[in-house]
Amino acid sequence: MSWIEPEVTKKPRRPMFLCVLSNTKTAHIPKLSAAGKTAELTDYTPAGDAELMDTGNIISVPVLPMTPPYDTPTPAIMTRSALKLTDAPYNFINSGLIVTPEVPCIDLKAKPGEDIRKPVAVYDVQGVYERAKFLGKRLRNQVDHVVIGESIPGGTTTAMGVLMALGYNGNVSSSADENPLKLKKQVIEEGLKASGLTFGCLKDDPMKAIACMGDPMMPAVIGLVAGFQSTDVSIVLAGGTQMAAVYALIKHLGFNTEKLAIATTRYVVEDKSANFIELTRILGVPAVYVADPGFGKSELKGLHRYETGTIKEGAGAGGAMYLAGLYGISQDEFRSEVENVCKLLKAGH
Amino acid sequence: MSWIEPEVTKKPRRPMFLCVLSNTKTAHIPKLSAAGKTAELTDYTPAGDAELMDTGNIISVPVLPMTPPYDTPTPAIMTRSALKLTDAPYNFINSGLIVTPEVPCIDLKAKPGEDIRKPVAVYDVQGVYERAKFLGKRLRNQVDHVVIGESIPGGTTTAMGVLMALGYNGNVSSSADENPLKLKKQVIEEGLKASGLTFGCLKDDPMKAIACMGDPMMPAVIGLVAGFQSTDVSIVLAGGTQMAAVYALIKHLGFNTEKLAIATTRYVVEDKSANFIELTRILGVPAVYVADPGFGKSELKGLHRYETGTIKEGAGAGGAMYLAGLYGISQDEFRSEVENVCKLLKAGH
Repeated sequence: MSWIEPEVTKKPRRPMFLCVLSNTKTAHIPKLSAAGKTAELTDYTPAGDAELMDTGNIISVPVLPMTPPYDTPTPAIMTRSALKLTDAPYNFINSGLIVTPEVPCIDLKAKPGEDIRKPVAVYDVQGVYERAKFLGKRLRNQVDHVVIGESIPGGTTTAMGVLMALGYNGNVSSSADENPLKLKKQVIEEGLKASGLTFGCLKDDPMKAIACMGDPMMPAVIGLVAGFQSTDVSIVLAGGTQMAAVYALIKHLGFNTEKLAIATTRYVVEDKSANFIELTRILGVPAVYVADPGFGKSELKGLHRYETGTIKEGAGAGGAMYLAGLYGISQDEFRSEVENVCKLLKAGH
Repeated sequence: MSWIEPEVTKKPRRPMFLCVLSNTKTAHIPKLSAAGKTAELTDYTPAGDAELMDTGNIISVPVLPMTPPYDTPTPAIMTRSALKLTDAPYNFINSGLIVTPEVPCIDLKAKPGEDIRKPVAVYDVQGVYERAKFLGKRLRNQVDHVVIGESIPGGTTTAMGVLMALGYNGNVSSSADENPLKLKKQVIEEGLKASGLTFGCLKDDPMKAIACMGDPMMPAVIGLVAGFQSTDVSIVLAGGTQMAAVYALIKHLGFNTEKLAIATTRYVVEDKSANFIELTRILGVPAVYVADPGFGKSELKGLHRYETGTIKEGAGAGGAMYLAGLYGISQDEFRSEVENVCKLLKAGH
């Protein structure tokens, strides 16, 4: 649980960072997601994250993705910093966005996710999966180490919903100051009921678990992983409990998980209301990388909020930091770049 | 004008093939485009080309892109062969498709092009250009040699329209047995009139030339080139007269063209009704690569039609062959793979 400093020799020959951008209307439930100033503004968060990661600022979205009440900046600032420091190749994937960014995305033709309290949460799970698999196959020749992040407000609730359907008790992390766990559980109860599901009843049908309780980010990531099966490409799922849920889905699909790992931030791991580490142990995740940007040492107050639990992870921030580590970038260098990114953000807005 | 056999040492360290997929309603004018069985079916041609290039077959489109009367297969078979033989990284770019393929594309959020006889032929030229430029900048770290092809039915007419607006007399090539040059000229006359333009009047405003007379493939390619300006990335525009028109636009924008080249097939170069080579000389294109797959030697009759002029180029076929040449692949190896691709196509359909 410390900042990872892998040897520079571990630097991958051909790495790539991918970020899957999605929306689910589950995020419109008041007080559920804090990844935006209001429930409706969370529609813009993945697009804003992508613009920020690509250009260092937002272009088309009305406000920066900030988490109230202290306007903590989106974790995409970390991803931006890692991409800038490493010059690693990257791509964004649109898998069900309500609002698309002004920067180019690979389109999987997915519809936005519905409120999981409706009978169908994700349309055309198989189609999205197949298109993502094509993409994974296409990327086989370009990469040997892939870090896959996500940006989807409301995604921890859908993650918890899928885990429940698969038979795991996943108390999930949150980007809210006080994790609204009770509200999330209530929403998931209603969702299970609306789909006629019980705890663990879909352990043999993970695709249905996505369709009933999940979000459109999930078939995209799983399809990518499917496209890399039977190759030497190693994959790091970059995220907290959401990527644990994705890992669970992959495992229940019967895929080979030897080349999979999860990377996240220290803030997810230390979230006392969640049980990330226990969950990864139960799931048998081969490797968990925990990245610590040391924001407590920062001069910027917005970053301190990460230490005290306002937001914890997103936009593949933990995995991006892990990637920076592979390039030999130290915690101090990384934090310093995040501070630069923050200052430029403020100057622009 | 022979099959290029560059030295293997010239093999680029990090090549990439990009294919811009677009539609223009100009292709709906009867008998103008032969890139599909009927004028309406040309809507499906770029999507079918992408599916074929990525998977070796069509998935979602109703019919294979074939050119009547002899069902000559789309030049995308050549591109498919080159990508398969080389394992070169590639991506497809959706810049104004009416029909999207089932394989993933990078989306530039462009609208399909209108009939050039309307006052506006391409909407939001600047926006498409800017988004493509973001993509070019993002790819800077991934590549050092980019081959950019296109698939857009009706594209030779829009190319000719743009060349006229810029002050060039571009008799363009065609995928039809008898190049309907008279019809094309008539359409362009109407188009110039509808936009209040005269020959050469937009030589100082290439973006307006696209908006009035062009198609949505053009701002995408130009934006990509803009994103690579001031880098060591060398760019091969893969196509015939269409890419000559793109080159003209780039030149009139005042970009540095030192690192640009055009690659096309022998069939374009030998088209007596067009003036490709003369045009590239007038434009001062630094290098023109001419690829010859030697289809006259093939056992497949559909391929013979390339020698006799049915179709000549498309989906970056000439540039893809050029790329295969850089990997040390011989003409015989290439033609043999094209034959394999054709046989698999027939088996599937």
